[in-house]
Amino acid sequence: MNFLSDTTAPAHPALLESLTRANSGYAASYGNDVISAELTDRLSDIFSTDLDFVLTTSGTASNALALSVLCPPHGMILCHDEAHIHRDERGAPEFFTGGAKLLPLAGEHAKIDVSALENALNQWPQDFVHAPPPRALSISNLNESGCAYSPTELKALTQRAKSEALNIHFDGARFANALVSSGESAASMSWQSGADVLCLGATKNGALGAEAILLLGDARRHLPELQARQKRSGHMGPKARYIAAQMLAWLRDDLWLDLARTANAAAAEVADTLRNAGADVIHPVDGNEVFVRLDEELAAQLRSAGVGFYSWPDGSARFVACWSTTDDEIKALEQALNG
Amino acid sequence: MNFLSDTTAPAHPALLESLTRANSGYAASYGNDVISAELTDRLSDIFSTDLDFVLTTSGTASNALALSVLCPPHGMILCHDEAHIHRDERGAPEFFTGGAKLLPLAGEHAKIDVSALENALNQWPQDFVHAPPPRALSISNLNESGCAYSPTELKALTQRAKSEALNIHFDGARFANALVSSGESAASMSWQSGADVLCLGATKNGALGAEAILLLGDARRHLPELQARQKRSGHMGPKARYIAAQMLAWLRDDLWLDLARTANAAAAEVADTLRNAGADVIHPVDGNEVFVRLDEELAAQLRSAGVGFYSWPDGSARFVACWSTTDDEIKALEQALNG
Amino acid sequence: MNFLSDTTAPAHPALLESLTRANSGYAASYGNDVISAELTDRLSDIFSTDLDFVLTTSGTASNALALSVLCPPHGMILCHDEAHIHRDERGAPEFFTGGAKLLPLAGEHAKIDVSALENALNQWPQDFVHAPPPRALSISNLNESGCAYSPTELKALTQRAKSEALNIHFDGARFANALVSSGESAASMSWQSGADVLCLGATKNGALGAEAILLLGDARRHLPELQARQKRSGHMGPKARYIAAQMLAWLRDDLWLDLARTANAAAAEVADTLRNAGADVIHPVDGNEVFVRLDEELAAQLRSAGVGFYSWPDGSARFVACWSTTDDEIKALEQALNG
Amino acid sequence: MNFLSDTTAPAHPALLESLTRANSGYAASYGNDVISAELTDRLSDIFSTDLDFVLTTSGTASNALALSVLCPPHGMILCHDEAHIHRDERGAPEFFTGGAKLLPLAGEHAKIDVSALENALNQWPQDFVHAPPPRALSISNLNESGCAYSPTELKALTQRAKSEALNIHFDGARFANALVSSGESAASMSWQSGADVLCLGATKNGALGAEAILLLGDARRHLPELQARQKRSGHMGPKARYIAAQMLAWLRDDLWLDLARTANAAAAEVADTLRNAGADVIHPVDGNEVFVRLDEELAAQLRSAGVGFYSWPDGSARFVACWSTTDDEIKALEQALNG
Repeated sequence: MNFLSDTTAPAHPALLESLTRANSGYAASYGNDVISAELTDRLSDIFSTDLDFVLTTSGTASNALALSVLCPPHGMILCHDEAHIHRDERGAPEFFTGGAKLLPLAGEHAKIDVSALENALNQWPQDFVHAPPPRALSISNLNESGCAYSPTELKALTQRAKSEALNIHFDGARFANALVSSGESAASMSWQSGADVLCLGATKNGALGAEAILLLGDARRHLPELQARQKRSGHMGPKARYIAAQMLAWLRDDLWLDLARTANAAAAEVADTLRNAGADVIHPVDGNEVFVRLDEELAAQLRSAGVGFYSWPDGSARFVACWSTTDDEIKALEQALNG
Repeated sequence: MNFLSDTTAPAHPALLESLTRANSGYAASYGNDVISAELTDRLSDIFSTDLDFVLTTSGTASNALALSVLCPPHGMILCHDEAHIHRDERGAPEFFTGGAKLLPLAGEHAKIDVSALENALNQWPQDFVHAPPPRALSISNLNESGCAYSPTELKALTQRAKSEALNIHFDGARFANALVSSGESAASMSWQSGADVLCLGATKNGALGAEAILLLGDARRHLPELQARQKRSGHMGPKARYIAAQMLAWLRDDLWLDLARTANAAAAEVADTLRNAGADVIHPVDGNEVFVRLDEELAAQLRSAGVGFYSWPDGSARFVACWSTTDDEIKALEQALNG
Repeated sequence: MNFLSDTTAPAHPALLESLTRANSGYAASYGNDVISAELTDRLSDIFSTDLDFVLTTSGTASNALALSVLCPPHGMILCHDEAHIHRDERGAPEFFTGGAKLLPLAGEHAKIDVSALENALNQWPQDFVHAPPPRALSISNLNESGCAYSPTELKALTQRAKSEALNIHFDGARFANALVSSGESAASMSWQSGADVLCLGATKNGALGAEAILLLGDARRHLPELQARQKRSGHMGPKARYIAAQMLAWLRDDLWLDLARTANAAAAEVADTLRNAGADVIHPVDGNEVFVRLDEELAAQLRSAGVGFYSWPDGSARFVACWSTTDDEIKALEQALNG
Repeated sequence: MNFLSDTTAPAHPALLESLTRANSGYAASYGNDVISAELTDRLSDIFSTDLDFVLTTSGTASNALALSVLCPPHGMILCHDEAHIHRDERGAPEFFTGGAKLLPLAGEHAKIDVSALENALNQWPQDFVHAPPPRALSISNLNESGCAYSPTELKALTQRAKSEALNIHFDGARFANALVSSGESAASMSWQSGADVLCLGATKNGALGAEAILLLGDARRHLPELQARQKRSGHMGPKARYIAAQMLAWLRDDLWLDLARTANAAAAEVADTLRNAGADVIHPVDGNEVFVRLDEELAAQLRSAGVGFYSWPDGSARFVACWSTTDDEIKALEQALNG
C-alpha cells in the first residue's frame, strides 16, 4: 500500500526488455546512436511537428536545462508558488541559469491565475535596468496539485506571456497523465498551446530514468546551446542508447498513454475510497495524484496500517497512484480506512 | 573492430540481470533504497575503510560534483594539461564550482610532473587576495594517456599538495584498469595515496551508466553539501535503485576487476599488433588504452577497413579496448594492418 | 524641487574636502592605506564593538557581497517582498551567491511580519535535501516604505531566525535615517538587535559613493572570504583611500547623524505639506521618504510644475528628502500643490 | 621613492576640481546625468567613431564585465599566461561569465605569440561539444610586461581570431601609456586593430577611480546586456556623475596623454638608472613599467634605502613610474643604487 510517489514504483517490463535488446554490440556514445535517431522520428510523429530533443535521466535536470536556454542570468522566470522548480529542485533553475530569479505566482489548485500573471508582468517591466525582467513562464501540466490545464487555460497564460516576448516552458513530468485526462492530442497540449520547450517525463510513468527535453518551433534554434549545457552539466549520457531505448519502448504502441490511464484510474478509485471514508478531497483529481484533508486520527490509523503517503506543507495528505497500482492495494487502503 | 571508446561498448549481462532483479515492487527514491544501503557495506569492504558516497550516471557529473565540494569559487584546481576535467567536460568543473579556475600542469605521459606542481604552488600563493589560491589537486588514474600512477608517484604529488592544505580529487573513470595493472589494493590506490575523494567509474567498464563519488576520511564531512549539490544539479536519481543495482553487480565477486583485466589484456594485444605493424606506441600501456603514431597511409588503410579509432589532438591515434573486446576483433585489426 | 531620490543629491562639501586632503603623496592600494586603518577605530567606537569591514562604492555591491558570505548557493535568503535586494538590484544577490534563492515575505509597511517569517521557516525546513533551506534573513532598516524597525521588532525577527541558525543581514542604505528617527545607538540597532552583517550606506546621505560592509561578532570570521569575493567582483578599489576618506569625514563629529536629521526633518515637512493638500500618506514617515496616494489631477499638476517624484509599483508616489533639501524647495512644493 | 604601482599614486588635481564642479545641485543617477552625456561626445571624437560605453571604478570590474558579454559560460577566453585577467583578478572573468574557461597562451614579453594562438585554435575546435570552444581573445596593451603591441601585431592576432568568429577584448588599463609610446591614434590602437571592446583605464593614470568600457562597431549591440550585468554586479554607480566628471577632466585637452607621456618618460629614466647600476632590464620599456633582474645584494640595498618596488613571480623586480613621479624621486633611486 505505497502511495508515496510515482518515483517509488518499478519500471514497466517492456522498458527493461528494450534495454536488453539495446545491449548488443557497439553503439555511438553521447546520443549519436541509432536508437536516439529512431526516437526523433517517433517523437515528431506523436507531436505532429518537427522537433529537436536531448535526453536526461532526471526531471530536475530537464527542467533546469530547458530554463537555462530560455532565460538569461539577469532575467526572471515566472511560475506557480507550488511549482516543482520552485519548491522541490534545490534551486536547480537558479544554478543552471547562472542566477536567474524565480517569481512565485498565486492561483487555486496550483494553477497560475491569469490576473497573477498580469500583475507580475505589470510590476516587473521589460525595460527597467534595476530589476530582472520576466523572460520565461513555466507551467506544470499535470501540475503539483494533480490538476490539468486545458488548452484554453494554457493559451490564456501563454498568449499574455508571449505578448511580452517571454519564452514558454512546460514541465511535463506527468504530461501523459494530463494528456489522457484531457483527451487532447500531444500537439494540442504542447506547441499548439504555446510551449517553446516541453520537458516530457517517463520516469514517473514506467521508466527506470528517462526524460526528454523537446525543442519546439523556433526554440529549435537553441539546440547547440542546449547540448553544450547538457554536456557541461554532466547530463549528456556516455551510453545514451540506454535512455533512448527506454523512451522508445515507452512511446511504442501508446504504452505511455496506457500506463497513464491505469494510474489515473487508480487515482480516481483512491479518491473515491478516501471520500467514502470521510476525507475531504481538496483538488480536482485530473491525473494520478489525490490530495485530501484527513483528521489526525484517520491519518494515524492509516500509518499504523502501513499505508504510505506524504504530508504536504499545507497540512493535506498526498496519495499517488502509479502504473503499477493494483486493485488489491486499493482494497487494502479501504480496509485500513475502515479500521 | 570498434576501438573508439569504452563508452561505445555494451553493458555486461550481469548488470542487466541485476536491474531486472531490482525491478520488483516499491523502493524508496533518491538513494534511500535498500540496494544503495547494501552498496555502502560493499564499498567499505573493498576500500577497507568507512566511507560515504553518492551515485550518478556520468563521470563528468561525478568529477564536477566532487570538485565543487573541494574547491570554493574563488579558488583554483590544479590538474594535468591533458586532464579530462580540463579538456573534455565542456567546463563542467567551472560550472559546478561557480567559476573556480583550472590550472593546467605539464608532465610526460599525462602524468603531472612534481616540479610542475611545485612551480605552480610557488607562483600561486595561498594568501594573495588578488589571485585564486590552489585549493584542490586533481589526478586521473588511469590517466588520459592510458598510464597508471603508482602509489609512490601519487604520494609524491599529494603530500606536496597537502602541505599547502589542498584537497585531493582522484578521477577514477578507469580506476579498475589502473588497479589491476598495478596489482595494488583499492585502499592503496585511493585514500592511502592521499585521495580525499575518488570518482569511481563503472560506465566505461561494463555498466549502462553508473558512477560513485566516494568521500574518504575527513572528506566524509562534505556529504550533506554533496547531496545538496547532487540534487541541485539534477544528479540525484529519482529511481536510484537502478544505479545502485548496477554498481552492486559490478563489484560482486570481483567482476569489476575481471572486466578490467580482460580489457587491459586486450589492449596489450592491440599494442603488440600495432607495434608489429610498425606503429610507434607512444605511452606505456598500463590499462585499456593504446596511443600510437601511425603514418597517414596506414591510418587511411585502417579506416577504409572499418577499424574505429580516434585521432588525438597531438596527432596520435587512440585505440581503446573494452571488457567486451574479442580475439576476433584483434585478429581483424591485424588483418586490416596487414592490408 | 527634486524629490526623486537621495542618489540625485550632491555630496556634502566636507567629504570633498576630505578627498582633497587624502590626495597627497603615495598611499598603499586596495584598502591597505592609513585612512582605512583610521576608519577601523572610528567604526569600532561608533558601534561599541570590535568589527571588521570592507568598503565599496555601491549599496547593491555591499548587499550582494554580504549575502554571498552568509548564504551558500544551495540555500535561501528570506526578505520582504518589497526589499531592495529582491526588487531593485537586478538579481545581484543571486549572482553573487552563485544562485541562492530569495523568498519574498509579506508584511505591512514593508516590515516583515513575524508570522510570515514563522510560516516560511515551517514550510522550508533545514534538512530537506530537495529544497533550499533558509540560511539568511535580510532586513532593511530604514526600509523600502520609509519605516524604521525598533530594536524590539528587530529582535523578534532575528531571534526566531537564529533559532534555525540563519545568518542575519541588515541593509542599512539609510541606516543613519533610522538611527536618528529612533534615538537608538548604532550598537542597539545593529549587533545588539541580531545583525551579523550591516551594510552601512553613506552614498544616499552625503557621500559621492561610499558604503561599508561591517562584519560583527562571530561574522568577523568571514573577512578573508569577503575580501576574496570583493576582489573577484571588482569591488576592491585600487585607490581605496578615496572611499575611506569619504567615510571618515562622514562619520566625523556626527556629521552622518546631522545630515540624516536634516533629511528626516525635511521629509516630515514634505509629509505635512502633502497631507495639508489632501494627499493620503500611506506609511509612517520614520526617515527621509514619504509615500502618498495622490489623485491623478494633483499628480499631473505637480509634474507640470516641475516637481520630481517617483510613481511606485503599488500606485503610490514616493517623495524623498535629502541632506540638501532646502526650505525653499518645500515651499515650492507647497505652492505647486496649491496650484 | 615609491615605484610599487601606479595605483599608489594620487589623483591629478584637475580631476578633483572636476569633482567639485560636478558637485552642484541634483543630477540624474545611474549614468543618466548630463556629464555622462557630454562624455559620449568626447569619447566619440577621440576614437573617431560612434560608440557606447559604461563607467566603473575598477579595471577588474571593467574587464570582467566586458568579457561577460563577449563569451558565454560554456565558451573559452584566450589570453596571455601573464594576463592580469588570468593572474591578478581572483577569477573575476570566471565569476562574471558564469564559469567560462581562460586558456593561458605563451609568448615573449607577455605578448601572445601568433603560433600559440594558432595552436590553441587548432586544439580547441568550435564545434566539439565536449570542450569549451574559444569565443573571445583578450589582449592587454600596454601589457603586463610593460610592452606595447603595434597595430600590425594586434591585427595579426585579431584577424586570426576573427576568422574563427572570436570576439576581441582589449585590456587598456594602461592604454594611454601604449598610445603615446607608439604614436598611434586611439582609433588605430583599438577598433582599427580589431577591438570589439576596449576597457579604457584612467585610475592608474591620474584618476581617483574611473574606467570606461567602450563598445565599438557591432559590439554596440551588447549595450543593454552590459548595462544589465553592470547593475547586477553592483557596478552601476548611483552617483555616476562623479565618475564621468573624472573621465571628462582626464580626457580634456589631452591631459590623459600628457600624464602618460610624463610617466613613460620617468620610466625610461628609471630604466636607464637601473641599467647604469648594472641591473638587467628584461623587457622593452614601452610604457611606464620597468622589469629588471637585480642581484640580491642590490635588491636588499634598495629596500633598506626605502625604495618601493615589487618582486615579480619570475624573480624579476618591477618598478612603476606614474604621472606624479618626480625627478627627485629618480635621483633618490640613483643614490640608493649607488649605496
